[in-house]
Amino acid sequence: MIITISREFGSGGRELGKRLSDNLEIPFYDKEIIQMIAEKHGFDEQYISHVSERNIRAVYPLTIGCRFTTAPNPVTKQSVEIAVEQQKIIENFAKQGDCIIIGRCADVILKNYNPFNIFAYADMEAKIRRCMERAPQTENLTVAELKTKIMEMDKERRKYRALYTNSKWSANENFHLCINTSKLKIKRLVPVLSEYINLWFEMWKIT
Amino acid sequence: MIITISREFGSGGRELGKRLSDNLEIPFYDKEIIQMIAEKHGFDEQYISHVSERNIRAVYPLTIGCRFTTAPNPVTKQSVEIAVEQQKIIENFAKQGDCIIIGRCADVILKNYNPFNIFAYADMEAKIRRCMERAPQTENLTVAELKTKIMEMDKERRKYRALYTNSKWSANENFHLCINTSKLKIKRLVPVLSEYINLWFEMWKIT
Repeated sequence: MIITISREFGSGGRELGKRLSDNLEIPFYDKEIIQMIAEKHGFDEQYISHVSERNIRAVYPLTIGCRFTTAPNPVTKQSVEIAVEQQKIIENFAKQGDCIIIGRCADVILKNYNPFNIFAYADMEAKIRRCMERAPQTENLTVAELKTKIMEMDKERRKYRALYTNSKWSANENFHLCINTSKLKIKRLVPVLSEYINLWFEMWKIT
Repeated sequence: MIITISREFGSGGRELGKRLSDNLEIPFYDKEIIQMIAEKHGFDEQYISHVSERNIRAVYPLTIGCRFTTAPNPVTKQSVEIAVEQQKIIENFAKQGDCIIIGRCADVILKNYNPFNIFAYADMEAKIRRCMERAPQTENLTVAELKTKIMEMDKERRKYRALYTNSKWSANENFHLCINTSKLKIKRLVPVLSEYINLWFEMWKIT
């Protein structure tokens, strides 16, 4: 059971992943973790095959929030190398067994693992509200600045996908379920969504 | 509880609507019904406010299948008039209470009724398989011909939407849930989907 989540910034895709991970009891790896491993360790077979979500969390505790971390410019030689490392790391996590992976084109990288691919999105108003509620207190952005930031983050994701895959970011044909999270409480959504996912894997095994 | 379903041809959107209607026990109106009423009766207030799904079904029994019925060319004066009648008919159904409406840009027409908008889609292979399984026996189309037909039908829908609304057909921002039906048994999907829909309406009422 490999689940990938792609998402618009501020749509709650990461929270969705974390909560699904708790509900389905399978590990959860997000963009930041994968990026950190790639930058610090590269694809060190020894390290990757022994690292687990549990010990990653020990050095890198997960906070659910909206953080405007920008990936390194994807066209420099070094960042292409990092992207390649990241792909290997993602594939290695999938080889280790059931898991949830957020971002980094995992749906494309893991195509042969028959993943369930989710796209989470929301209307701009909902994304701004979410970011305001969850931003660190040190961040004092106006609504207009937040909107610009959100659009910039999604532009980065769109560019990243275009650079490393042949498929269009956010196009529904890449996904098995596209969820508009506007006004929804993700916590309440997760049990019914877990049911949907279990059913999906059951039907895909039959056919 | 107003639910609208937009769908790619052959994705099973109409079957989904019919089964959701049975499960949620609310009436279900599809494109053909709305078109038939508009053409035969126009917007006859007297007729529309008394007609129910039950008596429509008596004269127009529902068959779940893939039929390549083409809407009249949407740019003639007569067809624009019919489209306007259809919009009034759709709004009238919504006024009568909970219902499911398939196609005809009902998500846009009923915007003020706070509908739950679904988009059903599937990969081409799945759509072709579905059409072959469900086509009337009199229809002998090759796979290539079916593919062309499916693409033509979706092109018509895209054009219809572009003509009567400002929004793009199939763009996920118009919908609350986009469901890839490839390889899925719609009958089995409906209970969990009904749960999702009930939850959605509950959360939207709170916020």
